[in-house]
Amino acid sequence: MSEINLSLDKVYQLAYDCMIANGCDHDNATALAETMTAAERDCCHAHGLFRLPGYAASLKSGKVKGDVKPTIKQLAPTVLQLDAHNGYAPLALKTAKQPLADCARQNGIAAMALIRVHHFAALWMEIEALAEMGLAAFAFTAYKPAVAPAGGSKPFFGTNPMAFGWPRKDKSPMVFDQASAAMARGEVMIAAREGHQLPEGVGITKDGKPTTDPNEVLEGAMLTFGGYKGASIALMIELLVGPLLGEAASFEAATRDNNDGGPPQGGELLIAIDPTKFGHPDDPFAHAEQLFAELLDQPGTRLPGERRHQNREKTEIEGINVPKSLIDKISELSA
Amino acid sequence: MSEINLSLDKVYQLAYDCMIANGCDHDNATALAETMTAAERDCCHAHGLFRLPGYAASLKSGKVKGDVKPTIKQLAPTVLQLDAHNGYAPLALKTAKQPLADCARQNGIAAMALIRVHHFAALWMEIEALAEMGLAAFAFTAYKPAVAPAGGSKPFFGTNPMAFGWPRKDKSPMVFDQASAAMARGEVMIAAREGHQLPEGVGITKDGKPTTDPNEVLEGAMLTFGGYKGASIALMIELLVGPLLGEAASFEAATRDNNDGGPPQGGELLIAIDPTKFGHPDDPFAHAEQLFAELLDQPGTRLPGERRHQNREKTEIEGINVPKSLIDKISELSA
Repeated sequence: MSEINLSLDKVYQLAYDCMIANGCDHDNATALAETMTAAERDCCHAHGLFRLPGYAASLKSGKVKGDVKPTIKQLAPTVLQLDAHNGYAPLALKTAKQPLADCARQNGIAAMALIRVHHFAALWMEIEALAEMGLAAFAFTAYKPAVAPAGGSKPFFGTNPMAFGWPRKDKSPMVFDQASAAMARGEVMIAAREGHQLPEGVGITKDGKPTTDPNEVLEGAMLTFGGYKGASIALMIELLVGPLLGEAASFEAATRDNNDGGPPQGGELLIAIDPTKFGHPDDPFAHAEQLFAELLDQPGTRLPGERRHQNREKTEIEGINVPKSLIDKISELSA
Repeated sequence: MSEINLSLDKVYQLAYDCMIANGCDHDNATALAETMTAAERDCCHAHGLFRLPGYAASLKSGKVKGDVKPTIKQLAPTVLQLDAHNGYAPLALKTAKQPLADCARQNGIAAMALIRVHHFAALWMEIEALAEMGLAAFAFTAYKPAVAPAGGSKPFFGTNPMAFGWPRKDKSPMVFDQASAAMARGEVMIAAREGHQLPEGVGITKDGKPTTDPNEVLEGAMLTFGGYKGASIALMIELLVGPLLGEAASFEAATRDNNDGGPPQGGELLIAIDPTKFGHPDDPFAHAEQLFAELLDQPGTRLPGERRHQNREKTEIEGINVPKSLIDKISELSA
């Protein structure tokens, strides 16, 4: 497959221009381009430029608004609600960050309920941003049915990622972001596009039979990681995003969505914790470094997210390779 | 193996008397007996009477105090800290429940940091108690190294359970409680005692080789559920219980513990959420029931915790069967 090398600045410009050409205002296009560039920078290509056609389609169909400004309300002393007014997640998350951090620092723990938001990227970005502000944080979001429940054979859960981050002094935060699906749906889509087989245990056919063919899995259902335990986590995420926030659980998002290829409307829950407010007799961050050092003392181990940071160091110098077919598609969409 | 049928009242009395005989005061013995009886009632035998010898050993060695009263401090508007003063978790959790619920109802979300506590039971009990008060809640605790990290081969993580609960009107709450180990350590100990083999993927020998022999796993290491994703959750729990609370991470608990067979000192983090404070335009609980109904509409599915509730209905009438060898041991300890 023919690929073209792009600098990260060029990736940003491509994404920004395409979003502007499709009706985004400057703030939304900036936030979207930052998000896609960060994904490409860390080699999470499934959340990078690969998403542009979906973003463009959802602007074209009118499902998502590219020119709206998120608003924030305080619902309770430690509960903030951000209404994205059917805009994209990146601007919503940029807007949510500081008020949530302030509320968590003041109270110890606080939550941000994002509603009417269209999320099409990774959760590690918002968690990394909060962790860089010195906060431990969780993020949860649902999607549309893609994953079979334990014992079932039809899609019910979204891929339902959860992310968690812990701040580190003088280092990038420790952040993991993992689908409760055995594999991220974007990765399955890329495997389908590139003609790769999937590992066993990732999904089933529409008749409920195990398969390693990504196209069969996209027509059938994905499975959760770790069997019924992953399914419990997927159910927890449905509850935290649907009934808790008053937003769509995955099965509801599907019925509301126009299937234009862009992100469905949904919710996202962020919980931020100020580790300096929990009574550590010494320094919680130094204590965590002892934990990390002890873990890394075992040969073969590494911290979650470490590979992303290694990729980052590389791509900031070398740029990234993008399939020419995708660049052609983006040029067409930006014309 | 010879077994004796006991009513739940008799289970309670056996546990209470044994704890009193070993130096507990009335409040601690009551809370411990309630906890062990609830475990037997739901057929979670690994946290029932099976734990009595360990509790007794830790009183005898002086590691745990059976006559202390937990105290609570407010560290921040939504952070409460319970110091168990080296007492057992059951009385600490009974004491923590109401202040945490009040703080969560007032603020929307709140945390309880339990420190200097000795936890030897399941987390679903405290989460069920909070959910019965109308709160969604998380619990996290660590232990002593038993589980190898992703890529490693030596015990580092505790079995590190997390639990989550959601309240249901007119029904028992939905509660799951799962070790980030592929299997609860208590279950491995029971398999060793009863001579059963373990499923594949549960553990490795002390040389890092896969095994299904529970004794080899107890000498070697357990594995996390779901590979590296379960390991991320195990690491998150270490951070939330150790560095966040200023308590022992699993690797530290091991060095402090006297290995008397009872529970090591550690911490536990509870987070409680009031679902009525998150801006649901209608009723979050009714919304959750729609989600559950849709899930259960798929043949073969059930909600987490359902088996426990079925056991409960049965054992409340029929009692439970306890190995005679364990009853003899308890009689000896109570003499």
